[in-house]
Amino acid sequence: MSIDVSDIPALARGCAVLGTGGGGDVRTGSLAAVRAIREYGPVPLVNLADLPDDALVVPLSGIGAPTVSHEMIHSEDEPRRVAEEVERIFGRPPSAVMSSEIGGSNGVIPVAWAAQLGLPLLDADGMGRAFPEVQMVSMYVAGLPADLVIMSDVQGNVVTIRPVDGLWSERLARAVCVAAGSSALMADYVLTAAGARGAVIEGTVTYALEVGRATEGVPDPLGALQGRLGAARLVTGKLTDVERRTTGGFVRGTATVEGTGDDRGRTLTLELQNENLVAIEDGRPLAMVPDLITVVDTETAAAIQTEGLRYGQRVTVLAWPCDPLWRTPKGLETAGPRAFGYELDYVPVEELTAHV
Amino acid sequence: MSIDVSDIPALARGCAVLGTGGGGDVRTGSLAAVRAIREYGPVPLVNLADLPDDALVVPLSGIGAPTVSHEMIHSEDEPRRVAEEVERIFGRPPSAVMSSEIGGSNGVIPVAWAAQLGLPLLDADGMGRAFPEVQMVSMYVAGLPADLVIMSDVQGNVVTIRPVDGLWSERLARAVCVAAGSSALMADYVLTAAGARGAVIEGTVTYALEVGRATEGVPDPLGALQGRLGAARLVTGKLTDVERRTTGGFVRGTATVEGTGDDRGRTLTLELQNENLVAIEDGRPLAMVPDLITVVDTETAAAIQTEGLRYGQRVTVLAWPCDPLWRTPKGLETAGPRAFGYELDYVPVEELTAHV
Repeated sequence: MSIDVSDIPALARGCAVLGTGGGGDVRTGSLAAVRAIREYGPVPLVNLADLPDDALVVPLSGIGAPTVSHEMIHSEDEPRRVAEEVERIFGRPPSAVMSSEIGGSNGVIPVAWAAQLGLPLLDADGMGRAFPEVQMVSMYVAGLPADLVIMSDVQGNVVTIRPVDGLWSERLARAVCVAAGSSALMADYVLTAAGARGAVIEGTVTYALEVGRATEGVPDPLGALQGRLGAARLVTGKLTDVERRTTGGFVRGTATVEGTGDDRGRTLTLELQNENLVAIEDGRPLAMVPDLITVVDTETAAAIQTEGLRYGQRVTVLAWPCDPLWRTPKGLETAGPRAFGYELDYVPVEELTAHV
Repeated sequence: MSIDVSDIPALARGCAVLGTGGGGDVRTGSLAAVRAIREYGPVPLVNLADLPDDALVVPLSGIGAPTVSHEMIHSEDEPRRVAEEVERIFGRPPSAVMSSEIGGSNGVIPVAWAAQLGLPLLDADGMGRAFPEVQMVSMYVAGLPADLVIMSDVQGNVVTIRPVDGLWSERLARAVCVAAGSSALMADYVLTAAGARGAVIEGTVTYALEVGRATEGVPDPLGALQGRLGAARLVTGKLTDVERRTTGGFVRGTATVEGTGDDRGRTLTLELQNENLVAIEDGRPLAMVPDLITVVDTETAAAIQTEGLRYGQRVTVLAWPCDPLWRTPKGLETAGPRAFGYELDYVPVEELTAHV
């Protein structure tokens, strides 16, 4: 199977839903993907099983604050410089590109990077969603040493980090990103196909395409999306308050939805750190990270990203279970509510919403 | 010739004088050098002419704010990790260590790094003094591409920067340094011996030793030092005001010296940015960067570094010409007064002090 121009709108819609508000604006990624496919041709989608054990897989993502990166012009030279550095370090060129995070623009734009490099895209990612920090990837949870990060910025600088652990990886990569203008292309963990088995979340590109297609031409897009995701509907209402600030490469803030219709009288507050992390009603959480929480347009079921939240929008908040990897002790330690500074014990969204 | 424990006090005194207030506290470097020589033996001092053309020379320096770095414990693993990264990148191990800056602790501590690595020290440096920014080195002025920086911190992280130019080198290295705790070991420009010819300032380790020895056991240390340096005496007096602040990995501030004795009634102000950069009397500069300005104890002629300046100290301010390299157009563009934000046209210290 290959990803062609005609697949990009569905992929972008699906990635926006899986982005839980973050991962960058999908319009940027879509534009880049369409342009690159037009120039270099469709991008083959491969499975891990298709690759020889020693094939190098390069997980790529854009790092930066969404409010900055969706206005930055990405250069074609950035993936080339990362691939050159991979070859310099490993003595052989990469065999495939992988999305580090399938959520948001970072799930779509690797199609462009793969096209530009003439490489296939691996049908997998490192999150099954979007997360704001560098160490919040399946490879880290699977226990792979976070021993190599390669960054390339629009100016042409290439920075290679050999961190002692995932937290230093995050701290140093973030500092480089801010110094580079709050936006950079990053390869985190260059993997062999053998090493990737069990350490990446497989099938997520295909899944994002399916999620994106679920709402195409159906009479009830919201119902279709909810069904495809197996999501709980936390509230349907109106955005009445959005507070955001960008600091140190991050967007932080809150969004408040006041219920309408059947939900009149209810108020849901979302805590944001690039992504939607916790949904709270009357002081009680209804869903929390690492489960997925996405704000969608009630009529079209199109996901609204953090930077697109506006007063008065008619929205529905959906929440559904994350990949089981994130519910392991190491997964929760890495990306559970306490990893983001919330004094909450993780409770799965199915339990929290059983009686909603 | 080799550098032994008995040479370290003179080397440290000389490097402090050439440090123009910066380059880090020489006590830290001296302690490390003495310890390393005791453990690994004396360090051979070699000239460029002694090295084969393809021998790799690694210019090393500590990067960070002096007020932080002189309290940081440096680990022996840092130079080893840099050397390993050099070998990984170039496919052969380094042949010699070089001081990136001969001024301050950064002129002394490479003796320790060379001893720990079992390598000789090159009798050369990249400044002939100390400078606060990464791109302010002779290699940059000589037109060598600033294409590789390797940093290693006390935590064990290794960061390799391939910057597009010297200014990005500085910006990214500084960001990494601050994220790493405001202190790191840095290799800037890995050189071949052939490439180093004409791009480094040769003989500066020997020169620092001579400057340090000039004041040993003589009746008039200040006169001896002034004579050895060919320095102008800008003022002799008392430190009456010292203002310093540490921001973004830098120390900035001013120091005021009120003349005593023959200089009664005169007031000299020094502008500091890690180093002493401009000396001003009655709104008129008496010396300015890249010429060297050093505050010494009037009695002992020992240099006082920026972080050691205290109210009431009896001091003499000396100033003398920099290496001719810094007086070229590219040299002044890189490290002249305007490179530090001063609205001054460079005038050599000999002209400014001709009638002092």
